[in-house]
Amino acid sequence: MSDTGITVKKAEDFSEWYTQVVLKSGLADYAPVKGCMIFREHSYSIWEKIQQIFNEKIKATGHRNVYFPLFIPENFLKKEAEHFEGFIPEVAWVTVGGDTLLEERLAIRPTSETIIYATYSKWIRSWRDLPIKLNQWCSVVRWETKATKLFLRTREFLWQEGHTAHATKEEADEEVMEILNDYRDLMESYLATPVLVGVKTESEKFAGALYTTALEAMMPDGKALQMGTSHNLGQHFSKVFDIKFLDEHEKERYVWQTSWGVSSRVIGALVMTHSDDKGLVLPPRIAPVQVVIVPIPFKGASPEAILAKAKEIFQKLQQKQVEVVLDDRAEYTPGWKFNEWELKGVPLRIEIGPRDLKQKQVTIARRDTFEKTAVKEEDTVLTVMKLLEEIQNSLYNRAKKLLQENITTVQTYDELKKVLQEKGGFIRASWCSDQKCEGKVKEETGATIRIVPFEKEVPFSKCIYCGGEAKQVVYFAKAY
Amino acid sequence: MSDTGITVKKAEDFSEWYTQVVLKSGLADYAPVKGCMIFREHSYSIWEKIQQIFNEKIKATGHRNVYFPLFIPENFLKKEAEHFEGFIPEVAWVTVGGDTLLEERLAIRPTSETIIYATYSKWIRSWRDLPIKLNQWCSVVRWETKATKLFLRTREFLWQEGHTAHATKEEADEEVMEILNDYRDLMESYLATPVLVGVKTESEKFAGALYTTALEAMMPDGKALQMGTSHNLGQHFSKVFDIKFLDEHEKERYVWQTSWGVSSRVIGALVMTHSDDKGLVLPPRIAPVQVVIVPIPFKGASPEAILAKAKEIFQKLQQKQVEVVLDDRAEYTPGWKFNEWELKGVPLRIEIGPRDLKQKQVTIARRDTFEKTAVKEEDTVLTVMKLLEEIQNSLYNRAKKLLQENITTVQTYDELKKVLQEKGGFIRASWCSDQKCEGKVKEETGATIRIVPFEKEVPFSKCIYCGGEAKQVVYFAKAY
Repeated sequence: MSDTGITVKKAEDFSEWYTQVVLKSGLADYAPVKGCMIFREHSYSIWEKIQQIFNEKIKATGHRNVYFPLFIPENFLKKEAEHFEGFIPEVAWVTVGGDTLLEERLAIRPTSETIIYATYSKWIRSWRDLPIKLNQWCSVVRWETKATKLFLRTREFLWQEGHTAHATKEEADEEVMEILNDYRDLMESYLATPVLVGVKTESEKFAGALYTTALEAMMPDGKALQMGTSHNLGQHFSKVFDIKFLDEHEKERYVWQTSWGVSSRVIGALVMTHSDDKGLVLPPRIAPVQVVIVPIPFKGASPEAILAKAKEIFQKLQQKQVEVVLDDRAEYTPGWKFNEWELKGVPLRIEIGPRDLKQKQVTIARRDTFEKTAVKEEDTVLTVMKLLEEIQNSLYNRAKKLLQENITTVQTYDELKKVLQEKGGFIRASWCSDQKCEGKVKEETGATIRIVPFEKEVPFSKCIYCGGEAKQVVYFAKAY
Repeated sequence: MSDTGITVKKAEDFSEWYTQVVLKSGLADYAPVKGCMIFREHSYSIWEKIQQIFNEKIKATGHRNVYFPLFIPENFLKKEAEHFEGFIPEVAWVTVGGDTLLEERLAIRPTSETIIYATYSKWIRSWRDLPIKLNQWCSVVRWETKATKLFLRTREFLWQEGHTAHATKEEADEEVMEILNDYRDLMESYLATPVLVGVKTESEKFAGALYTTALEAMMPDGKALQMGTSHNLGQHFSKVFDIKFLDEHEKERYVWQTSWGVSSRVIGALVMTHSDDKGLVLPPRIAPVQVVIVPIPFKGASPEAILAKAKEIFQKLQQKQVEVVLDDRAEYTPGWKFNEWELKGVPLRIEIGPRDLKQKQVTIARRDTFEKTAVKEEDTVLTVMKLLEEIQNSLYNRAKKLLQENITTVQTYDELKKVLQEKGGFIRASWCSDQKCEGKVKEETGATIRIVPFEKEVPFSKCIYCGGEAKQVVYFAKAY
C-alpha cells in the first residue's frame, strides 16, 4: 500500500488500480442509484476546463450553445430506422407524469438528433438560414446492463453534442473535419493524450450517419478508447424530418448535416494514461489546481514568516494566471498534505520550510517524476511556468511513445490473435473491405476495426481473415 | 404592428406581448414535446453569462461545482415527509429501462436534496470534513399541468442548486445570507432587476426547510415573480439521512444544512422588466452582444472604405472587452438589420455611412431610448463604454421606480382587494401571524405573502383579515 492509500499497482491489477485512483483522489463516486455516478468537484472542475477550451474553439468558428429538452417522444426515435435500431435497446422511458399515465412514452435522450432536427425543419426556410451550427452540453442516458465503470460505463454521463445543417455536402464535410481537428487539439494539447484519427467502417459508424470520423486513444492495458466522434449525417435525417430550404435559385433542397460529440469518458482516459501507483497525475493545462504551496512550520522557526512568504509566492503565481492553492490548514501535517495533493495529481508542489526561508529559496517537487529542486526565491515564478510546460510536454511524449509501441503490424490472422492475447494495442492489418471478415474477427477475437486511416496506406498482405485481395490497411483493437 | 414584427403592445396585452417578444427575438421556442421549451442561442448565451457571474461569486467563497445523477429512487423522496408532499404531485417517473420494467420507479429530479444528502451521509465523518459547499448546474423536471409559459412555466427548466453542510446553525445562517446577497447582486447589478428580500412565511417556505429567504421582483403587470430562494434546512434532512460528524470533542452531532437555487425563469423576468413594443431590451452587463456595428453602403460612396472603418472600430471595441458584432452580411439591408438587432435587444448600434465617413464620425443609437448621436471617430470607444454604463443604470433606475410605485400600503381588507383588482403590485399590510388569515386571503383573492421583510416594521393597523392584533408587516401580491 502506497502512502496515498492505493492498495494495488497499475502494472499488476489495472482495473482495480483505476477504480481506486478515481475514488480515492476524489474525482468521482458511485451514486446511490444503480449504474450512476457522481462527478465530484475534482472531476467536474476538469470537465469545466474541457468546456471552456472547447467552447472557445467552436465559438470562434461561429457555433453557439443551446439547450433542447431531455424528453424525446417515442415516435421521433422511430422515424429513422437505423438510428432507432442503434439506440432502442438502451433507452430509459418516462411513462408517468404526476399521477397520469402518459399517452406516449418519452425517452430520456440517449442523443438528440431527432428532437433537434424536428425543430430545424421548422426553423430552416431559406439558404439565408444556413448554416445552423449549434451545440449543447448536457447529460445523456443509456441503460447499460454491464457492470458500472466510473467515467467509462454509467447509465448517465456528461457530454456535448453538436448539430449542424448546411447547404452542401462539401460544407458538411468541412465541418466534420474542423470539429475533428478541434477534438484532436483538445486531446493532444490539453489532455496530453495522443490519438489515431480516421474513419469508422460501415459496421462501426454512428447509427444513421453517412460516415463517422473518430479519435482513438490507447490505454496502458492495451485496449483502445474512443475519445470522440464527428459524423457526416448526409441527408438521412433531413429527408426523414423534412428539413428543406430554398436555395438562391428558389430551388427546394434538403440540408446536409453533421453531429459530433465528446463525453466525460475522456476523463477516464486521462486517468488511465497518466496516473501512477501514488494516484492521479494531471497534465498542467487541464489540472484544476496546477500548484499547491505547503508551508512547513517547524519548532523554533517562525511560522508567521513562513506563512507570509507562502502568501507572497501565492499572489505572484496568481497574478500570472497560475491555478494555485495555498494549503495552510492547521489541522493537517505537511506529510498528510503531500500525500493528499499527490493523490489528486497536482503537477507541482512548492514547499517552504525554515531552511528554505533562511536560504531565500523554495523547494519545488514535480508530481510526474517526484524530482525535487531548490529554487532561488526570485526565480520561483519563472521556474514554475517552465516546469508546468515541461510536465505537459513530457506527459504527452510519454503517452505518444506508449501509443507508438502499441501499434503492431501483422500479416496473418494467427499473428493478430497472438498479439491480441499477449500484448494488445492497435493491430495494423490489411483487409479486403468485406463486412463478413470484419464480423468474423470481432466474433472470434473481440477485436473491432477502430480506425481506417485518412491517408490510405497500401495493403502489405492478403486480407487478414479470408486471404482474398486486400483493399485497405486498418487498425484493429479491443476497446472500452 | 411594429417594424420588428411584434403585433401587440406591452401596455395592451402583456401576456401575448411577452410571448411574441420571446419567440420573435429568438430567445426561445416551444419544443416538439408537450410542456417543454428550447433555449435558443440568444437565451442560452444569457444563461452562460449568469453562470459565469454566479460561479465567480461562489467559487471565491469556497464553493465548487459538481454533478449528481438525474435519477432519484422513489424511496429517497419519501424519506422526508414534508418534502415528499411538496414535490410528489409533479414528478415524472422512469419505469422502464431498455426492455425491463424497473423494480423501483425513478424520479427525474425535481430538486436534489435527497440524493445529495444520502451521499453526504457517506462523505461526512469528522468536523474536518465540514463545511461542504457544493453547487450544480442542471435541469430539473416538474410535471406542470397548467398552460406552458416560456421561461416561467415549463416541465423542464434550467437552474443551479447549492447544497451545503455545516457544523453549526450559525454557520448555516451565514451561508443562507451570503448566497442571498450574491443573488441580490446578480439580480440588481447585472439583470438590472430590483428585488424585495426577506423571509417566507411557514406556509410559503420550501418543503422541508427550517426557514426560506427569497428575492421577489415586480413585473409590469402587477404580479410578483420569485427570483431565487436560499433555505436554511436546519437538521431536518441530516436527521432523516443520518448525516453525522464527530466534533472536536469527539461528540457525535448532526450537520446543519442549506440549499439555494436560481432558475432560468429569471430570464423571463428580465424580458418582462425591460423590453418594449419593439422587442427585447437587454441590460448591457448581461447582453450577449453589447454593440452591433452596421456599415451602410451607399451608391457612389466607397463600400470598401466604410467596411474598413467598421472593422477598425470593431477591433478597438473588442480590445476593450466589449462584446461586439460587425454585421456585414450582404444579403440583408441596413434597415432589416436595424430591426433585427432592436428585436434582439442589443444595447447600442453603431452606424457608419458615407456621411459619417466623410465627417470622421460614427452614429450611435441607444436601444433603450432610441436616441441617436453623432460621435467623433476618436471618441467612439470611450463613448460606447460610457453609454453602456449609462444604459445599465438607467434601466435599473426605471425598474426601481416601477417597483417603488408598485408598493401600496393598506389598512383594511377592502383596500387590499381594491388595490389587487385595480393596480396589483406589492401590498404592504399588517398581519396577526396566524396561518388561517394568510390562507383566507389567498383563498379569497389569490394573493400570497411574498415576503416578511428582514427589518421588522412596526404594524400600523389591526390584522388585515381578522382585525385582531397585528404582529408583523408583510408584503402580499399575486405571483407568477
